[in-house]
Amino acid sequence: MDGTRASYTVGVDFGTLSGRAVVVRVSDGAELGSAVSEYRHGVMDGTLAASGTRLPPDWALQVPSDYVDVLREAVPAAVAEAGVDPARVIGIATDFTACTMLPVLADGTPLNELPGYGDRPHAYVKLWRHHAAQPQADRINELAARRGEPWLARYGGLISSEWEFAKALQLLEEDPELYRRTDRWVEAADWIVWQLSGRYVRNACTAGYKGILQDGRYPGADFLAALNPDFAGFVDTKLRQDIGRLGEAAGRLTARAAAWTGLPEGIAVAVGNVDAHVTGPAARAVDPGQLVAIMGTSTCHIVNSDRLVEVPGMCGVVDGGIVDGLYGYEAGQSGVGDIFAWFADTQVPADYHRAAAAAGLSVHQYLTGLTADLPVGGHGLVALDWHSGNRSVLVDHELSGVLVGATLGTRPEHIYRALLESTAFGTRRIVEGFTASGIAVNEFVVAGGLVRNGALMQIYADVLDMPLSAIGSDQGPALGSAIHAAVAAGAYPDVRAASAAMGKVRRAAWTPDPVAARGYDRLYAEYLTLHDYFGRGGNDVMHRLAALRRDAFREAVAT
Amino acid sequence: MDGTRASYTVGVDFGTLSGRAVVVRVSDGAELGSAVSEYRHGVMDGTLAASGTRLPPDWALQVPSDYVDVLREAVPAAVAEAGVDPARVIGIATDFTACTMLPVLADGTPLNELPGYGDRPHAYVKLWRHHAAQPQADRINELAARRGEPWLARYGGLISSEWEFAKALQLLEEDPELYRRTDRWVEAADWIVWQLSGRYVRNACTAGYKGILQDGRYPGADFLAALNPDFAGFVDTKLRQDIGRLGEAAGRLTARAAAWTGLPEGIAVAVGNVDAHVTGPAARAVDPGQLVAIMGTSTCHIVNSDRLVEVPGMCGVVDGGIVDGLYGYEAGQSGVGDIFAWFADTQVPADYHRAAAAAGLSVHQYLTGLTADLPVGGHGLVALDWHSGNRSVLVDHELSGVLVGATLGTRPEHIYRALLESTAFGTRRIVEGFTASGIAVNEFVVAGGLVRNGALMQIYADVLDMPLSAIGSDQGPALGSAIHAAVAAGAYPDVRAASAAMGKVRRAAWTPDPVAARGYDRLYAEYLTLHDYFGRGGNDVMHRLAALRRDAFREAVAT
Repeated sequence: MDGTRASYTVGVDFGTLSGRAVVVRVSDGAELGSAVSEYRHGVMDGTLAASGTRLPPDWALQVPSDYVDVLREAVPAAVAEAGVDPARVIGIATDFTACTMLPVLADGTPLNELPGYGDRPHAYVKLWRHHAAQPQADRINELAARRGEPWLARYGGLISSEWEFAKALQLLEEDPELYRRTDRWVEAADWIVWQLSGRYVRNACTAGYKGILQDGRYPGADFLAALNPDFAGFVDTKLRQDIGRLGEAAGRLTARAAAWTGLPEGIAVAVGNVDAHVTGPAARAVDPGQLVAIMGTSTCHIVNSDRLVEVPGMCGVVDGGIVDGLYGYEAGQSGVGDIFAWFADTQVPADYHRAAAAAGLSVHQYLTGLTADLPVGGHGLVALDWHSGNRSVLVDHELSGVLVGATLGTRPEHIYRALLESTAFGTRRIVEGFTASGIAVNEFVVAGGLVRNGALMQIYADVLDMPLSAIGSDQGPALGSAIHAAVAAGAYPDVRAASAAMGKVRRAAWTPDPVAARGYDRLYAEYLTLHDYFGRGGNDVMHRLAALRRDAFREAVAT
Repeated sequence: MDGTRASYTVGVDFGTLSGRAVVVRVSDGAELGSAVSEYRHGVMDGTLAASGTRLPPDWALQVPSDYVDVLREAVPAAVAEAGVDPARVIGIATDFTACTMLPVLADGTPLNELPGYGDRPHAYVKLWRHHAAQPQADRINELAARRGEPWLARYGGLISSEWEFAKALQLLEEDPELYRRTDRWVEAADWIVWQLSGRYVRNACTAGYKGILQDGRYPGADFLAALNPDFAGFVDTKLRQDIGRLGEAAGRLTARAAAWTGLPEGIAVAVGNVDAHVTGPAARAVDPGQLVAIMGTSTCHIVNSDRLVEVPGMCGVVDGGIVDGLYGYEAGQSGVGDIFAWFADTQVPADYHRAAAAAGLSVHQYLTGLTADLPVGGHGLVALDWHSGNRSVLVDHELSGVLVGATLGTRPEHIYRALLESTAFGTRRIVEGFTASGIAVNEFVVAGGLVRNGALMQIYADVLDMPLSAIGSDQGPALGSAIHAAVAAGAYPDVRAASAAMGKVRRAAWTPDPVAARGYDRLYAEYLTLHDYFGRGGNDVMHRLAALRRDAFREAVAT
């Protein structure tokens, strides 16, 4: 198979800080070479690199040329590492963070590259975690709820400040001249495909999850006009574009892009996609009922179904949003690995760090090891995992973390364990939200960086009382993109067939312990009680604490 | 006044780990010399020193001869340091931890000193924090509530496992032979006076607060018989004894005690007393409405009133329990300074310790300094200070600590500040409990080790929205005892007069900031809501977590 007749695809995963290219054998998904390219400008959340202009709070920008550099650097490096003949590469596909948006001219030129626009923050890419459009999102939600817009329920009742409309409205209202210069308001996921293929095609995934495209329709001009009269034409003039289904070819590699990448001109370029959503095929999990949890600093949950229902608190449901032909559901936990990191960085004393270093362990491994023999409930604690708010199922970013049960005997490893468990409880609540709405979850498949933490995975298996399947690749998104490239190139009839041949999974990598599962049932009941008390109006203390905090700083500034 | 005509008294404060003697000038309370003597055997809570016998969990014993060593070592050393003529010492008084109990023969000989009894744990002193009599306390409370015993309400509805009856019942039921050998069941506070004066007098303070003596009556023989038939005669045969009022002379220094101490034979020996309760006179706070908070690892609150009422959740009310002629009320917080120590020891990272050391500060001072400019509510947190349970007003030792509002931006100093504040909220709840029951609190006087923490004191002033008065001595209990010695010696007509001359206080040492006080009103409202939710049956999660923890370890042992 590695002989002269083998063919390959390239998958490129555009993350928050870098892009990774992987060269994959089409016949079996073998990953033969990879390379990473860090973005030269990283994330600009303090100042604008070009001018030193200070950015307001909650801004997060990127520079589009950094993405092109990944094509120029990481792709050829990966091919070189793989040692394959570039002529044998039959397709390329990409996945991207989302919702990550940029304003461009009709020919795709980013506005920040225009003379005189380099010092205008609104000319740059607004990264997914640019959160400064919350006032606009609040107005969108308030108006949509008041008007009873039918699409609102498809998003669990709430449009995020991260998404296409809120970010565009912020652009209009804060820099109207730049808004007028913007010919197209483009997902970076689609812009990079445009650069590769010379064609602008909106992918069905982000158009649905982030762009409020439901049943072929966007929010109407009357709705947009009610938000802001100058916004009325937004969809028709700046957003609407042909939709590409996932796994389709958006076009063919241009001569310019062939020169960047060293790949053959004219090979298939797949429709754009999102990092989490390409991971399902990479983990051979594209059938209804196979939920994939991509676990890192935060967790994204995706699951397909042949049914269209409204699931309270989900992020969204999109027809063909994960694979063409099925309804793709998405949910999420806003804080997971970053909660563990926060605790390890700020609340673990020096002797723990010393002991971990002496044992050759990370402090995470050391803390985990200390509770290896602790029976479930042995720490006497229960926590709420809301340090970054709650994305699903409460959709409330002003919620915050809780720890109940501390005594003078409570040790750092006990709190750490309770935090690990709290994220598993949050996951269980999401799974139960799906099943209660009629979306089956028959298999739980884990992917992402946290899969390496076996003790954490065992906790999830015990809390969910389900076996966990694990993706068999460390570079799931890039592999998933390579699978899409193979379909776009015609090597497989569809993503499902390509996934079956090229995806990798270990079934039942962790299985629940029945005694632990019963213990966790008791702890989860406590979690749920606190979840509803603090999250559903029983006690709005978290909102009041956030308001008090804002008032305190306002008064401190005023005096 | 320091001339040949000046006279002096000695106060001896018997703490948990050591005894401290102070020599005080009678005319004005000047503290002229002091000395500390550590107990040779400390607290025996793992093994019995004499035999190495392993002690069960929750036991805490002491050796009576260690107390005598304080008289032999610390008293002469303090007199020597003071440089006064021992012949000018006119009286001695003591205060003690309570309830600390020992079994003795009719002549006062501790049972552990009898031949063949040195390896019997029940022959030793049961220190105040011996908590192994909880099953007996539970039965006492259950029976008293069922029978409607009138004395129960005088203790906020609950008799503690630390007190005289529970500890005696444990002795009877676990070592009946030793119980039979016990002629008298004696408070250490009275035993030490017995050693000094040769007379056994029960002090009104511990007899009331710890010995269930109310309106001149103990619990009846029928009540005791219902607990255990062999307990029926407990009060009449082992407990009942003449009651000495606080400030009275119990007797005169014996020749033997004069030899121990180097003090003149025949000088006044005051009736015994308790460390917290003698602190009121030392802080010149003996009038109705002057609440004294003795703040250390835990906090004890005492306040006098001319009214007898029942205050829900107080530790107790005793006629003449603090000063003769007034009703003395006591309340408490089981965890204060030890919560701060727990946090500093287990949840503060290395760089904070390094920065504190570099600045020449304790980590407590460093953490406090980091939030010096933080406006009230600026951390977005609220905590419940129940890491050691809640003594007042909930009287529930299975309650545990809570932190609400943590985000990824929460820093250790924010949590530390929230913990400081939580203890102030706990204090405010106690003060409001008194005032709601008709016991005025017109002045809040602070004493104890935590008074040195000025930032903490400012938080208390702001939370209480009251000025704080501060005791003017670092050795409040010993000074308080010296005041009682002066009264017993006839230098003053009563404790109030002696306190006015010898006590020391700084009025309005801290005054509330009106802006901070309004901010704390908002945070305190959140504290109260959580207090009642977790503490009054809204959500009994803390009890269930404690039960789950017990079950978990039981199952872990069984498997």
